[in-house]
Amino acid sequence: MPVIKVELMSKSTKEQKEKLIFDLTKKTYDLLNIPPEKISVVIQEVGNESWGRGGFTRNHPDFDTLSRKHQM
Amino acid sequence: MPVIKVELMSKSTKEQKEKLIFDLTKKTYDLLNIPPEKISVVIQEVGNESWGRGGFTRNHPDFDTLSRKHQM
Amino acid sequence: MPVIKVELMSKSTKEQKEKLIFDLTKKTYDLLNIPPEKISVVIQEVGNESWGRGGFTRNHPDFDTLSRKHQM
Amino acid sequence: MPVIKVELMSKSTKEQKEKLIFDLTKKTYDLLNIPPEKISVVIQEVGNESWGRGGFTRNHPDFDTLSRKHQM
Amino acid sequence: MPVIKVELMSKSTKEQKEKLIFDLTKKTYDLLNIPPEKISVVIQEVGNESWGRGGFTRNHPDFDTLSRKHQM
Amino acid sequence: MPVIKVELMSKSTKEQKEKLIFDLTKKTYDLLNIPPEKISVVIQEVGNESWGRGGFTRNHPDFDTLSRKHQM
Repeated sequence: MPVIKVELMSKSTKEQKEKLIFDLTKKTYDLLNIPPEKISVVIQEVGNESWGRGGFTRNHPDFDTLSRKHQM
Repeated sequence: MPVIKVELMSKSTKEQKEKLIFDLTKKTYDLLNIPPEKISVVIQEVGNESWGRGGFTRNHPDFDTLSRKHQM
Repeated sequence: MPVIKVELMSKSTKEQKEKLIFDLTKKTYDLLNIPPEKISVVIQEVGNESWGRGGFTRNHPDFDTLSRKHQM
Repeated sequence: MPVIKVELMSKSTKEQKEKLIFDLTKKTYDLLNIPPEKISVVIQEVGNESWGRGGFTRNHPDFDTLSRKHQM
Repeated sequence: MPVIKVELMSKSTKEQKEKLIFDLTKKTYDLLNIPPEKISVVIQEVGNESWGRGGFTRNHPDFDTLSRKHQM
Repeated sequence: MPVIKVELMSKSTKEQKEKLIFDLTKKTYDLLNIPPEKISVVIQEVGNESWGRGGFTRNHPDFDTLSRKHQM
């Protein structure tokens, strides 16, 4: 421990994942002074069909408008 | 927040996921009076080989009987 | 409940998953005296590209050395 | 399965939790036709100090403004 | 990795947690031949008020009957 | 989304949590170019009694030695 779990909606490239794992580990190490060998990062990608906000799935054509509502 | 995570064993259709995301968001909004734009729903599908109850995986031919035992 | 979630980095065979689900359920049943029908096990496999320790992803050629550092 | 996990930032009353567990189960049952006895709901409350959006913790006095930024 | 996360509804004693952590690690080590130093176990206890099955919270007086229904 | 979940074994101060939430959000924003308002961070602290590695709980007096074994 610590275990950092990142749920991402978009597809990331191999390089982005490598950089994200390095940067999040480095920041946690710098701040909490925990040896990096004890810090794990797990990235989990979620398809647009399987994630939603405001009641609408990410792949809905009007997602940006519909997902920003204050009422339903 | 809130984040609602649904772990499902079966394959759901696109329409079922859309409806589930809408309905769970609506119920949470109705009950807790939190703006829908702040409510996220994440659906995670788990293969039958990777989930089990009572010690037996979901794809075991006798799953329904074996998974309902009170002893092992 | 209980729900036992196992995050695994490597690919496991069907037989390994069956055995792991049975063994983890049996141990929990033996120890906590909870009927096996109430114990679920979920296995989640994480690709080498999506998991890292010490700041380096599992598929880095020098992972075993780089991931065992005390500083960054 | 399915297991529905709800991460909530605010403190909810006992009655709200009961109602949320009932309503989310009912909606999942109605939609996916899974026997209710197989549907679990777990509610996890997260303190304002331990949750943040846009880089700011929920208990920051200007959270509503600061957490809605498009840049950092 | 692997990380084994156990969500438990009941309060467990210190000794039970120690034994559960040891037993689940040992079984995973025996089966998957992963060095024990790489195997983490996290136990998360969920209050009876915050967990439900079949639409009813664990602390409902008729939980055992109500949570075993096939309809709602 | 993204949701960054950090499981920490130790008690962190309010300031450390604030800084960790800010820094992890900033790094994710810098790298993936996602508006910070869409990035959530959840910190979950796990007691020493409820977490273990190598088969031993964190509060075991010889944890550092016992948790670094290659056999059991």
